[in-house]
Amino acid sequence: MKEQEFLAELKEMDLIQQALGVLEWDTQTGMPEDASDYRGEVSSYLYGKYFAKKVGPKMAEVLAYFSQHIEELSEVGKASLTLVKEEYDREQAVPNDLMVEYSKATSKAHHAWQKARQKKDFALFYDALKENVRLTKELISYWKKDEKTDYDVLLNLYKPNMTTEVLDDVFSTVRDGIIALREKIADEGVKPRTDFLNRKMTKEQQRKFVIKVVQDLGFDLNRGRIDDTTHPFATGINHRDVRLTNRWNETDFSMGIFGLIHEAGHGVYEQNISEKFEHTPVHEGASMGIHESQSLFNELVIGSRKSFWQKQYPFLQECAQGTFDDIPFTDFYASLKQTQASLIRIEADSLTYILHIIIRYEIEKMIFNDEVSVDELPQIWNDKYEKYLGIRPTNDLEGILQDVHWSAAEFGYFPSYALGYMYACQLYYAMKKVIDVDQVLSSDDYSPIREWLTQNIHQYGASKKPNQLIYDATGEALNPQYLLKYLQEIYFDVYQINE
Amino acid sequence: MKEQEFLAELKEMDLIQQALGVLEWDTQTGMPEDASDYRGEVSSYLYGKYFAKKVGPKMAEVLAYFSQHIEELSEVGKASLTLVKEEYDREQAVPNDLMVEYSKATSKAHHAWQKARQKKDFALFYDALKENVRLTKELISYWKKDEKTDYDVLLNLYKPNMTTEVLDDVFSTVRDGIIALREKIADEGVKPRTDFLNRKMTKEQQRKFVIKVVQDLGFDLNRGRIDDTTHPFATGINHRDVRLTNRWNETDFSMGIFGLIHEAGHGVYEQNISEKFEHTPVHEGASMGIHESQSLFNELVIGSRKSFWQKQYPFLQECAQGTFDDIPFTDFYASLKQTQASLIRIEADSLTYILHIIIRYEIEKMIFNDEVSVDELPQIWNDKYEKYLGIRPTNDLEGILQDVHWSAAEFGYFPSYALGYMYACQLYYAMKKVIDVDQVLSSDDYSPIREWLTQNIHQYGASKKPNQLIYDATGEALNPQYLLKYLQEIYFDVYQINE
Repeated sequence: MKEQEFLAELKEMDLIQQALGVLEWDTQTGMPEDASDYRGEVSSYLYGKYFAKKVGPKMAEVLAYFSQHIEELSEVGKASLTLVKEEYDREQAVPNDLMVEYSKATSKAHHAWQKARQKKDFALFYDALKENVRLTKELISYWKKDEKTDYDVLLNLYKPNMTTEVLDDVFSTVRDGIIALREKIADEGVKPRTDFLNRKMTKEQQRKFVIKVVQDLGFDLNRGRIDDTTHPFATGINHRDVRLTNRWNETDFSMGIFGLIHEAGHGVYEQNISEKFEHTPVHEGASMGIHESQSLFNELVIGSRKSFWQKQYPFLQECAQGTFDDIPFTDFYASLKQTQASLIRIEADSLTYILHIIIRYEIEKMIFNDEVSVDELPQIWNDKYEKYLGIRPTNDLEGILQDVHWSAAEFGYFPSYALGYMYACQLYYAMKKVIDVDQVLSSDDYSPIREWLTQNIHQYGASKKPNQLIYDATGEALNPQYLLKYLQEIYFDVYQINE
Repeated sequence: MKEQEFLAELKEMDLIQQALGVLEWDTQTGMPEDASDYRGEVSSYLYGKYFAKKVGPKMAEVLAYFSQHIEELSEVGKASLTLVKEEYDREQAVPNDLMVEYSKATSKAHHAWQKARQKKDFALFYDALKENVRLTKELISYWKKDEKTDYDVLLNLYKPNMTTEVLDDVFSTVRDGIIALREKIADEGVKPRTDFLNRKMTKEQQRKFVIKVVQDLGFDLNRGRIDDTTHPFATGINHRDVRLTNRWNETDFSMGIFGLIHEAGHGVYEQNISEKFEHTPVHEGASMGIHESQSLFNELVIGSRKSFWQKQYPFLQECAQGTFDDIPFTDFYASLKQTQASLIRIEADSLTYILHIIIRYEIEKMIFNDEVSVDELPQIWNDKYEKYLGIRPTNDLEGILQDVHWSAAEFGYFPSYALGYMYACQLYYAMKKVIDVDQVLSSDDYSPIREWLTQNIHQYGASKKPNQLIYDATGEALNPQYLLKYLQEIYFDVYQINE
């Protein structure tokens, strides 16, 4: 067995995945409406070819040999072997019948969830959710190795080496910290003006502004493109073909502008993973959480800085062709950072967002570790919203039915969003030790920021685990204090609170 | 061996082709500039999988069995078998080494052609063209069965069952007829006004107009899309996903408008091939010539009719927002049909275009049947332009170097363009026997035209050979008189000549 054989097999898998990536992008951006059944057949066929390789005899042979002869592999080969083995073992661990049952159940649950949403009634989703939970518990029994709790097994799927022990600690700190910040803002803060936020800015005006901004932030349009879609995403077909998608609201420019700035963070990551990992599973983000750290670094760290907006506001005014000419910079900036509790996660602002995630984390942990029964969940959900955010859903649609994740049995996924946010802030303070970030943001050349992120995060792809990556980049393990520090700096300034 | 096995193999091939179709469309419409090497690898890989099936052991088995048991196949199976067998035999007939040599030679020739164009010097293309001719002659020696001449073998590649015997006759009639028409126009015609043709019409104004027109002509946007590109084309991924592409010139609206009307003819064909042929090679146009007959029916038959423009001109004026308000309809219409000899085929008008094709046909036939030597070609080319069109190229770029086809060794392809044009006119007169075409074109509902074409052409896909298709649709074999009749009707009217 030669390393070349292993890498050739991985390359074939990657070529199929690249084709699948373009097909998926096309499906989401402009495929003719009536073509979806035909497209489904093409994608399933190619995915079948990919999956057959992933768990096929060649891969079994590769793993058997190189697990014993790891020293014969190059750096790229070694990193690939680790990732391939994890996935292979996970696939092999589960009986095929169970996977088929699971796949049917989630498909059924998705329909039940949609029906329940129409009627705003959790009862219509109850049976399907219970079945998703039951099957996930069964999967856990096959996957579990040395994880302390069942929920740890799920966390591991999306966040390698992350545990409830760590997250409990981190999340309670963050939760209490944000609640305290919110109290102080409510008591002492001066609310910013927001009356001009819904002034019309056309899609073309917004595009002109934000396409320049994402290029400033390092997104390379010779190796990427930007299209419209309904549910925005970024996809890296390969490092020279990275695609952002966006949606626009002409009477709420902040949606499209922050949306594309967010996706560009994912895109810049994909464009700057070291080329040597191309055609292997190492040429990917280290985890969902690390990927989100890059998009949220753009959206919430850069996008919250006064220095950034001070530089960009004149250009935004120019693109808006007079619409904001009567709004002084300080008013404009402060309006972007207003905070207000909302019932819906995806409408949440950057101060309250993480509380929505913590609520879901706490509930998921109860489901899998504490054997809470599924019918109690809406009550628990509503109580937590009231306790942490001070508002209570009046129906299940604005409560427990709002997210798609549980219908797809994606338990353990939500914490990635919060981790990404915490990582982003921690990276910011590490960067600040060597770069005067505000001075860079006041200049015409943002490249030092992009270069630092490439140096410390992007280039490694999935060759390092998230905790190692963060430790190496910042000199310490995940530390939630940076998030709290950042939020306090931004919000106390906007709400004119003197410490 | 069951028919299902055969159809399943064809379906797999089709699924791979659909993926390749989307990738190719993407490459031509908006793939990031720097991604082409990566894309090349993906497409080559998938094409390799497709080709391996096309000439693979399964297909050999299918052909061996069903050639002896044709009665066990359904209508779709039978039609597929015929097409698969033709391609299989053609692939099998040629030694692999020769195909490799051929592929290298054409790639080299393409580069030589580009260099020769830069220097406007045929000498730089001479060696490569000679090699393309030599290798094509070698291929002919493997392919030739009962064709009368070597050039017939090449014609057969693109136009099943078409012969030089037929074409010689048809083309000499057309050539002499057009030369006579041109003389009469020169002697007696009144030249139309054309001073307003280069007035600015923005891309958006043109799009608004022509997108409505192509929908009127039957292009279904729920099963299709329209994008920008450099070299326009239409592609049918499947009958529910048909994509047109176009380019625009804001100071020459006729390019983009007639361009998209042309591509829509291809697109409507692809959208209306009978669904029962989907996932087989029968779900394709019957030939290049028949495909062109549909695009040229739109562009040159419909697009030349006064009734069509009389109906559409007010909407064009509206879309142009005042630009043509001072131009009376008769002037506008006549300007679209001015005729003038040009040296460049793709800039030719609808009266002279076919002479460009006939020149190429006559030269190709000389190359392969009469053993003319390649170094004589520029002289022959220039003499023919002078004789038929009355103008002479002053250098090779505006002469023999203008087309890409010979650099790709695509000999025998050009006549398809002329056949398409003749078929289109013949179809028009057959349609006119049952439909009052001008009355339909004056109305808001063009569907009777589209339906007649679907009934007589589209639905059959490649299940009938072109000559059969034309015979069944029009009641006679290819007859060049219809083209001449049509050109005379249109041009004598525009040039105010009374017969």
